[in-house]
Amino acid sequence: MSLTVTGTIGIDTVFTPDGQHRENVLGGSCTYFAAAASFYAPVRMVAVVGDDFPPDFRRTIARFAGVDTAGLEVRRGSKTFRWGGRYQPDMDHRDTLYTELNVLTEAPPPVPDAYRDSRFVFLANTHPAVQIGLLDQFPGRRLAVADTMDLWIDTARAELELLLTRVDGLVLNFDEAERFTGLRNTVAAGRRLLDFGPRFVVVKKGEHGAILVHRDGIAALPAYPAERVVDPTGAGDSFAGGMMGFLASSRDTEEPTAFDAVRRAMAHGTVIASFTIEAFSLDRLASLTRSEVDARFSEYQRMLRLH
Amino acid sequence: MSLTVTGTIGIDTVFTPDGQHRENVLGGSCTYFAAAASFYAPVRMVAVVGDDFPPDFRRTIARFAGVDTAGLEVRRGSKTFRWGGRYQPDMDHRDTLYTELNVLTEAPPPVPDAYRDSRFVFLANTHPAVQIGLLDQFPGRRLAVADTMDLWIDTARAELELLLTRVDGLVLNFDEAERFTGLRNTVAAGRRLLDFGPRFVVVKKGEHGAILVHRDGIAALPAYPAERVVDPTGAGDSFAGGMMGFLASSRDTEEPTAFDAVRRAMAHGTVIASFTIEAFSLDRLASLTRSEVDARFSEYQRMLRLH
Repeated sequence: MSLTVTGTIGIDTVFTPDGQHRENVLGGSCTYFAAAASFYAPVRMVAVVGDDFPPDFRRTIARFAGVDTAGLEVRRGSKTFRWGGRYQPDMDHRDTLYTELNVLTEAPPPVPDAYRDSRFVFLANTHPAVQIGLLDQFPGRRLAVADTMDLWIDTARAELELLLTRVDGLVLNFDEAERFTGLRNTVAAGRRLLDFGPRFVVVKKGEHGAILVHRDGIAALPAYPAERVVDPTGAGDSFAGGMMGFLASSRDTEEPTAFDAVRRAMAHGTVIASFTIEAFSLDRLASLTRSEVDARFSEYQRMLRLH
Repeated sequence: MSLTVTGTIGIDTVFTPDGQHRENVLGGSCTYFAAAASFYAPVRMVAVVGDDFPPDFRRTIARFAGVDTAGLEVRRGSKTFRWGGRYQPDMDHRDTLYTELNVLTEAPPPVPDAYRDSRFVFLANTHPAVQIGLLDQFPGRRLAVADTMDLWIDTARAELELLLTRVDGLVLNFDEAERFTGLRNTVAAGRRLLDFGPRFVVVKKGEHGAILVHRDGIAALPAYPAERVVDPTGAGDSFAGGMMGFLASSRDTEEPTAFDAVRRAMAHGTVIASFTIEAFSLDRLASLTRSEVDARFSEYQRMLRLH
């Protein structure tokens, strides 16, 4: 069924602990999400870039079969969002070197009329008031999930709490869950977040996997044990893309907010994210084949099989 | 089949982040290991305490059905090992308040003749030269696994490397694996450790689960997602106890060092450890029933089932 992602497209500069770096490569939450989701279901992008956005990057995005870029606005006279970061040795934390919001400070991109019937909506991280405005443009949605970040927890808490009354699910990082709730224990923090409205919360823990706190149960899944991590950028968005793409590909009779549906979808997100981190930018996803995804998913299944 | 654990029995004082503490309670690696293993297989203890060891503590240990305390030496004129610690808010790190080695600085306890035929041997953390001396007293062993800690990595590296040529498996914490190898990535660190000799390395990550790095494969398992952690003391030893107890309970025809055997055994260790942390000292294991263990294991299985 139809899946739309709203989020950022950016030009990233990334330094990794092993001394490598890449300057001005394709990034952004929407980009990683859509590329990852495309392995499971067609996906529509709502995002805006400036007229400095390299045509090559647009071609890279469009090369993912099933990614609909009709909602990718190129705004004249505006500049694309840019981000630079340096990962700490543990790869799970990073320092931001610079953030040039540019076009992200302007009006959000319009949602194409043809996207309004989307059944699955993922609101990647941005100001929660903007997320609410976008959400309202999907009246036929069946499952809406939002991501957020520490900045909005600190500066737009009221709007974030309002957003939580409107979505089915929330995806956020481990330290953000603690920051929002003041609770260090991930399960306890997730339960507290459920009190604000969503049916489920997915807490991402990077190399340590993810925890699902759902009204109907709790589950923890490990990350795929990667031996070599080149660049963790986009892992969380790829995870969300794989998760939502899998849910959108499920049969219409299945309830996409059900505990077991979300839990299984997280496993697919885990596997897709494990490829993203094997190279800079979208490089690994761009070369990834369906059979590679299937093979790694089978391996992940076997790794967790206890029967 | 017969399982022996060598390790410490101690008197602990523990402060937890939620303001609770317990003074002078039963602890020690051997204690937690044996109590946990006893849910799967009979277990023999080799340990030494001083004559200050409270008879009540000995009764607590003996109350675990299947724990053989014939190898628990009470040494006249000596004092029992004592440890005090305070957990940091993340519960995965702790500061040692004091360590009174006492009897641990004297000769190690003798291995009873009746234990020499043990097929499964777990060498809980102590000086690696002592671990080697103990190991030599089990000529009929089929599976030998050792634990270690940062102190020996820093101060007895040569002996530790020698130990690794003699055991089938090594169990250690995440930060210790990094300290030993200089490699931050857990899988890479595990592989490096395999170069020293063992068939497998189990890297414990506390609330984030454990990773198996085996000559025949890699596996990650999450911790059971606990909502309330009272006292993490003994979680790692309980994990090892459940793991080794399960392996010792397997059919004689199964190869206990096989990748899949160790992986499945780790799941049992995970489940047993999840009970240990629900209360101070051995309190939760002392009240634990087989049906509670089975119910939680079934839940853990379902949580990871992706078929």
